[in-house]
Amino acid sequence: MTEPCHDLAHLAHVEMLTDRFDESLDFFTRVYGLKLSGEDATSAYLRGWDEYEFHSLKLTRAGTTGVGHVAFRADSPEALARRIAAIEASGAKVHGWVEGDLGHGRAFRFEDPFGHVFEIYYDTLRYRPDAGDRAALKNLASRYHGQGAAPRRIDHVNLLGEDVAAFRAWGETCLGSRVTELIQLDSGRLGGVWFSVNNKTYDLVCTEERGRGHGRLHHVTYATDQREDILRAADIFLENGVHIETGPHKHAIQGSFFLYVWEPAGNRVELANGGARLILAPDWEPVVWTEADRKKGQAWGLKTIESFHTHGTPPVKAGAQ
Amino acid sequence: MTEPCHDLAHLAHVEMLTDRFDESLDFFTRVYGLKLSGEDATSAYLRGWDEYEFHSLKLTRAGTTGVGHVAFRADSPEALARRIAAIEASGAKVHGWVEGDLGHGRAFRFEDPFGHVFEIYYDTLRYRPDAGDRAALKNLASRYHGQGAAPRRIDHVNLLGEDVAAFRAWGETCLGSRVTELIQLDSGRLGGVWFSVNNKTYDLVCTEERGRGHGRLHHVTYATDQREDILRAADIFLENGVHIETGPHKHAIQGSFFLYVWEPAGNRVELANGGARLILAPDWEPVVWTEADRKKGQAWGLKTIESFHTHGTPPVKAGAQ
Amino acid sequence: MTEPCHDLAHLAHVEMLTDRFDESLDFFTRVYGLKLSGEDATSAYLRGWDEYEFHSLKLTRAGTTGVGHVAFRADSPEALARRIAAIEASGAKVHGWVEGDLGHGRAFRFEDPFGHVFEIYYDTLRYRPDAGDRAALKNLASRYHGQGAAPRRIDHVNLLGEDVAAFRAWGETCLGSRVTELIQLDSGRLGGVWFSVNNKTYDLVCTEERGRGHGRLHHVTYATDQREDILRAADIFLENGVHIETGPHKHAIQGSFFLYVWEPAGNRVELANGGARLILAPDWEPVVWTEADRKKGQAWGLKTIESFHTHGTPPVKAGAQ
Amino acid sequence: MTEPCHDLAHLAHVEMLTDRFDESLDFFTRVYGLKLSGEDATSAYLRGWDEYEFHSLKLTRAGTTGVGHVAFRADSPEALARRIAAIEASGAKVHGWVEGDLGHGRAFRFEDPFGHVFEIYYDTLRYRPDAGDRAALKNLASRYHGQGAAPRRIDHVNLLGEDVAAFRAWGETCLGSRVTELIQLDSGRLGGVWFSVNNKTYDLVCTEERGRGHGRLHHVTYATDQREDILRAADIFLENGVHIETGPHKHAIQGSFFLYVWEPAGNRVELANGGARLILAPDWEPVVWTEADRKKGQAWGLKTIESFHTHGTPPVKAGAQ
Repeated sequence: MTEPCHDLAHLAHVEMLTDRFDESLDFFTRVYGLKLSGEDATSAYLRGWDEYEFHSLKLTRAGTTGVGHVAFRADSPEALARRIAAIEASGAKVHGWVEGDLGHGRAFRFEDPFGHVFEIYYDTLRYRPDAGDRAALKNLASRYHGQGAAPRRIDHVNLLGEDVAAFRAWGETCLGSRVTELIQLDSGRLGGVWFSVNNKTYDLVCTEERGRGHGRLHHVTYATDQREDILRAADIFLENGVHIETGPHKHAIQGSFFLYVWEPAGNRVELANGGARLILAPDWEPVVWTEADRKKGQAWGLKTIESFHTHGTPPVKAGAQ
Repeated sequence: MTEPCHDLAHLAHVEMLTDRFDESLDFFTRVYGLKLSGEDATSAYLRGWDEYEFHSLKLTRAGTTGVGHVAFRADSPEALARRIAAIEASGAKVHGWVEGDLGHGRAFRFEDPFGHVFEIYYDTLRYRPDAGDRAALKNLASRYHGQGAAPRRIDHVNLLGEDVAAFRAWGETCLGSRVTELIQLDSGRLGGVWFSVNNKTYDLVCTEERGRGHGRLHHVTYATDQREDILRAADIFLENGVHIETGPHKHAIQGSFFLYVWEPAGNRVELANGGARLILAPDWEPVVWTEADRKKGQAWGLKTIESFHTHGTPPVKAGAQ
Repeated sequence: MTEPCHDLAHLAHVEMLTDRFDESLDFFTRVYGLKLSGEDATSAYLRGWDEYEFHSLKLTRAGTTGVGHVAFRADSPEALARRIAAIEASGAKVHGWVEGDLGHGRAFRFEDPFGHVFEIYYDTLRYRPDAGDRAALKNLASRYHGQGAAPRRIDHVNLLGEDVAAFRAWGETCLGSRVTELIQLDSGRLGGVWFSVNNKTYDLVCTEERGRGHGRLHHVTYATDQREDILRAADIFLENGVHIETGPHKHAIQGSFFLYVWEPAGNRVELANGGARLILAPDWEPVVWTEADRKKGQAWGLKTIESFHTHGTPPVKAGAQ
Repeated sequence: MTEPCHDLAHLAHVEMLTDRFDESLDFFTRVYGLKLSGEDATSAYLRGWDEYEFHSLKLTRAGTTGVGHVAFRADSPEALARRIAAIEASGAKVHGWVEGDLGHGRAFRFEDPFGHVFEIYYDTLRYRPDAGDRAALKNLASRYHGQGAAPRRIDHVNLLGEDVAAFRAWGETCLGSRVTELIQLDSGRLGGVWFSVNNKTYDLVCTEERGRGHGRLHHVTYATDQREDILRAADIFLENGVHIETGPHKHAIQGSFFLYVWEPAGNRVELANGGARLILAPDWEPVVWTEADRKKGQAWGLKTIESFHTHGTPPVKAGAQ
């Protein structure tokens, strides 16, 4: 029997590509309500107001959209070493060490079965607020600024993959992560798998690519403190001309209250609130959702919107289909 | 350097003593909104509607009030063995194995420096809802019944101790737990210490006994999904003649939104909501609150109510003071 | 220029017909959370916990579903007399005086253009709570019981009519009510009209009958204090097997946060929250929504569900279509 | 019997004096979240985002603090004339017509028994948003900007008076307003009186001056849509160094959820949420609160803070006491 002790501490950051950098940056700071920690030649580094690291979103100028890479921070140098050994033994495609960027030290890079780039690292840069950004309460990472939707922290990332079962095996082996919920299709295939390396209900999701894309991003999500923050954000998105794709509503899977919008370059972004729900059982068994379950729609009956099954970033070129 | 890997998975349950059993049971089921899993000759076993174990509150008929014992579930049999070895090596007072009760298998018992009884175990009894108590969504442990305050799960227990520094050493050694926040008094003494074995911001607290009691309980807390659940609960408590001691307000320490009431026998019970705040950093440094910090009151300025410093259970007999 | 002084004080109650009386009564008391004031041979009299009159919903055993009658209370005996004079002068079909029922004194009955029965009255029966139902705060009509969704008070009723423009003329003339918002179809017809006799944004709505019915009810709505009450109610409906038709979401028209369900006999029932929005301007001009506006869906983009255009009570018999 | 038909439509605006104009204006726009409609030589004109008039707060540079004047808008020119006749017949001190300012046409001015200046008018200036300030939904007066606390509209003003019974008589006679709740002291004096000219539970309050001041302001209040808006505002106030005097909590009288802060010049400002509570009964009888009732504190037991009884603006000079 393996013990549930994890090696990875938490989802750390996602690099998102945008071909409308200025508009995307304006959206993420003014409307979505992240804070800008710094910028370099290619990227802006952003974080929720109560995140201890330098950034959780690296927004990068590119000729396309989608995900640059996904990063997890390890529990310790020893845990990091264990993960690297497991990855190298797994046969996963390995990029090896990179030097890090403005937000952290050297990181080990590798790929999932569909070419999404992941990195894991331990050496990080803690965010140090200057006097104007220091919170009134000393247990907060920085001042609550109340700008835009102002979520507290990154929550999870959802990738698309052609073979969810392959992703499951990869996540269990390479990340040492556990599956908390999954969709079991009647065909025997997996429709989606939800992972967590800690007590969060999920931090990484892979759902089936149905749009003929490859290596695509489905969405990135930040967490709010209350459901009311999401209802209020819906008005903010409305007033700022942001495309609201679906929600607010409550997911059946994982039970989180959600709202999906598209940032200016087309990447899907979610706000979610999970209430007090955590996975505390060390011997949690994955919750299995069947196609029959899924036909009931979301928790309160909302039908899943069609674009949710097809839209990912980068978009699939017309000629490719 | 020690790794942050924990051995204990989570706070599992608290045994609360009551000398007004029927009234206490009515309060906890009808007003506070826990569910009754079962009863034996001395105790009622209660749980929040989304807890996976048989019970998180064991309410026991007694000639007095206060805490019977506090239980943590271990991550695995191996982790349990590691903890027991550490406890036995620590010099803590050990009771040894007990057979368990309606809610779990055998457990290992020992004491904190002030005589509060703790137990740790791995073998548990999962709650199995019958058809009428099964939730509409299969990822919930049982049906959301919406009765009374209806919190989701147990959150933490706060004990009183004459020497908080001694409790800190005990908690780090015996529980293998980490300190997330603490109060550093000008005298050099610790005023309070907040522990967590997982990603929750805290699950166990020890604050200084100032009422000449010994081995007393300060309060037990359950978590709600939203702050609105607590505001609504305040009206329910008001309409049911429950003594509201203080709140709703927001704690400076740990930042949770709180409401404190006394159940019919006098034990203090809290409802709390922590929003999306978690301790995800593997190298989290304890937040240190000074007396100067504490003089600012709670987060939004509420002064701490006097009874909060003196009331504990069992009450101190007049002759004892 | 006419002055905005109204003669009718507020929507008082709706009589709803049910061919599943016991199930409907169980739904309205246990799940929806109204209180039962009394019963007579044919009907149960129900009210929200903070309503000053004996009832706001008269639930009547019948061989069908839909609306029995809609009642408004007048501002004074003089105002009632003015309204009756206006009704009699209008050519509306008049039933004349009825003796009232358990909840109020004599009432004057008449019809709208589609046969829905209305009554207006001044003499009422104030609800007098017994000791067990008295609120802890003396400015509340009765104890907040927290049962089910537990809305505070009736909000509005929505009827279906073949000719909304005719209803508008009738409402302005007979009720002396003002239009706060309306839908102007491209064809020149009105698609819906929202009325208010006081500072509420609306209390009576007529939308176009598209289902070949006649004299039908679209829905009855009660108001909650917070949007969170509606999110919580959604879980209560889900756990009780209630058909959730659409929502929670926010209306574009009138801006209220809504949730629509069908009670066991099929009558549509809404919960709504309007926040702090009131119509305070004495010279308010109706807000006009065009078909182009309506194509944007609800406030945050939800498409109006198809059954919303066709389902009314009583249902249209198959042979009739 | 007099009919409840009112002549005044609603509280329109309050002129607040500040001897720290720039700081006060920064507070009201950036932190409290009103919008600036315009400025003239002495004053800034501010409004909540969903108010139809040009302004509801006139912030005026002065050598002191407190209230400049309080304005109500009449229902019609005829209603205005009726009020003026009643005022002139009452013996109240009359200033007569003034020309109005940026926000409305000519207004009739008079005083309450303690020298607070009131004005009533009908001719107003509707706020016309430019393209950038137009709301996405056409039934809103302007764009929801989400800046700071961002309340929707003005709610009420609370003045201090040496003789509350005299104020009651004045308010009933001169404003034609009705009393919805009051405090009856054991001495036979009135401790406070709550008025409403419409369906709001109150728009004008007079409580007893206990600080040896004269003609003072107790506070001005704006309404939020949800209680959560107030909890969120508490964090915004905290982070901006605003003095939070008391709250958030729920009033026993009128039942509104409240938060009191002091703007930079010392004027007390409240945010309040009344849920769905309205005064709809045309024959509402004032709710009478005794000293015994008041000893229970606020709704959930919070003791009234001492400064609430003494602090008003302008402050009483030391030499005057």
